[in-house]
Amino acid sequence: MTITVALPDAAILHRLQPAPTGVHFVVWDVADEPAAFPIDLLVLRYMIPAADLARLAAVRVGVVQSQTLGYDGVRDALPPGTVYCNAVDVHEASTGELTLALVLASLRGIPAAAVDQRDGRWAHAQHPGLAGKTVLLVGVGGVGREIEGRLAPFDVTLLRVARTARTDERGVVHGFDRLPELLGEADVVILAVPLTDDTRHLVDAPFLEATKPGALIVNVSRGPVVDTQALVAALEAGRVTAALDVTDPEPLPADHPLWRAPGVLITPHLGGHTDAMSGRVDRLVREQIRRLLAGEPPKNLIFS
Amino acid sequence: MTITVALPDAAILHRLQPAPTGVHFVVWDVADEPAAFPIDLLVLRYMIPAADLARLAAVRVGVVQSQTLGYDGVRDALPPGTVYCNAVDVHEASTGELTLALVLASLRGIPAAAVDQRDGRWAHAQHPGLAGKTVLLVGVGGVGREIEGRLAPFDVTLLRVARTARTDERGVVHGFDRLPELLGEADVVILAVPLTDDTRHLVDAPFLEATKPGALIVNVSRGPVVDTQALVAALEAGRVTAALDVTDPEPLPADHPLWRAPGVLITPHLGGHTDAMSGRVDRLVREQIRRLLAGEPPKNLIFS
Repeated sequence: MTITVALPDAAILHRLQPAPTGVHFVVWDVADEPAAFPIDLLVLRYMIPAADLARLAAVRVGVVQSQTLGYDGVRDALPPGTVYCNAVDVHEASTGELTLALVLASLRGIPAAAVDQRDGRWAHAQHPGLAGKTVLLVGVGGVGREIEGRLAPFDVTLLRVARTARTDERGVVHGFDRLPELLGEADVVILAVPLTDDTRHLVDAPFLEATKPGALIVNVSRGPVVDTQALVAALEAGRVTAALDVTDPEPLPADHPLWRAPGVLITPHLGGHTDAMSGRVDRLVREQIRRLLAGEPPKNLIFS
Repeated sequence: MTITVALPDAAILHRLQPAPTGVHFVVWDVADEPAAFPIDLLVLRYMIPAADLARLAAVRVGVVQSQTLGYDGVRDALPPGTVYCNAVDVHEASTGELTLALVLASLRGIPAAAVDQRDGRWAHAQHPGLAGKTVLLVGVGGVGREIEGRLAPFDVTLLRVARTARTDERGVVHGFDRLPELLGEADVVILAVPLTDDTRHLVDAPFLEATKPGALIVNVSRGPVVDTQALVAALEAGRVTAALDVTDPEPLPADHPLWRAPGVLITPHLGGHTDAMSGRVDRLVREQIRRLLAGEPPKNLIFS
């Protein structure tokens, strides 16, 4: 038995050499002309727009392996019945790390220093610190747990909310219903939820009204978890500050008012994209190949 | 018995109200006309240049309380026999926090994002991450320990060196003599030593030659621990990158080549200066007052 594994570029093809016995690698991307041959495992390129997946209707594909964790909009775009797996364990640690980078950089004045540096301007000033602050973590899944662990030594009071109230080894996780009251206590609010019907525009005008004045809103989940228009209004009113690795729309057009709103740091969806990523993707693809050859179901199965 | 306590500005005077029984507060700064009255406890303003302390020759002062941790150059500037105390426990946590901010922001591309933001430019790219890297901590004093604690959950291999080799609860601390070999292993080198004759220009051309290519040098100690000219040359050659909260000279003049060297992030000595600082200074001053009134020796005594 030989399986055909389609890889999105020569870089990953090179990294996966030598091909395991029984595997035929091809480089093929969804944007290319429809493949005339059947593909047993298709590895999508990183951050492919969901809409592009509709092109798979013209291709015979066994299993589709994404390089991302989130899969909002994917089910609607994929041809019915496609087997789709996401990339659990590839991005969570890097995204947790970026979250701390965004929180610390924003509070401690690093974006302003980077801009001042271009002008040779030494502008010493006092900034807020993280120690002693209250942090509200919204979402306690894979990314949320990586954030929690990294916040632990920073001397913060951590409050946690998720769709379902529960208790875990770190204590109480409140339900979303407690958000209005908890928001009033938090100096930093971190969004680490998947984008679903429940979380779309979770951060809207009433949410922003309920936050403590001057709070820092950090989004490392998906852009539409925040109502951009409401956030721009709250930033322009000086009610909150923000650090956003994801935006809606994304990429953010050059003339969008969010770029220049006061008190916001925007990074271009850097979340999981570090030099640790490729090794983790390769490990996942090798495991999926092993499972296919062994006749086992793939891991991280989301739809089928 | 009444003691006279001189405070550098009205803000700290206000914070220390009401005055403890037996304490007469005055607002007086070293830059003012010499005080004609004796001062039992003089609280210096934050980040006062050491040279200004020579003006104390014209004043009768019991105890001088600094708001900083480092005291390089202070002994030479102070009139002989002055009792001088530094600010242990005021800045260490904030400086440890800033160190993580500098490391994470530099590795994850936040300075470039902040600059791109001004131009409305969304430039997604892969950046290095901290996870899996080797970090060499140079200096394991009060600040070093705060850094160690905060690095713990970031999945790094931590190597430590100090002037004196020893073993502590976290394992081995190597001596400075091991630096040449350890530098070749480190992706990130963090300088957290006091400025002394042993550490002045510790980071010189041979040190920079010994570092792993592309390593990130982080300085949160004092500017002259680094030979600026050697660092600029290494940055311009693309041998290392750097994140510097302290520089030599400081403040860095607008036309200094370090500002525009490639791969460097410069912050304007933000180290300990957060909203947590004033509460910690106040606590220290209150304790010194209590000790003076009780006839006990002051804490954090450095010279007398």
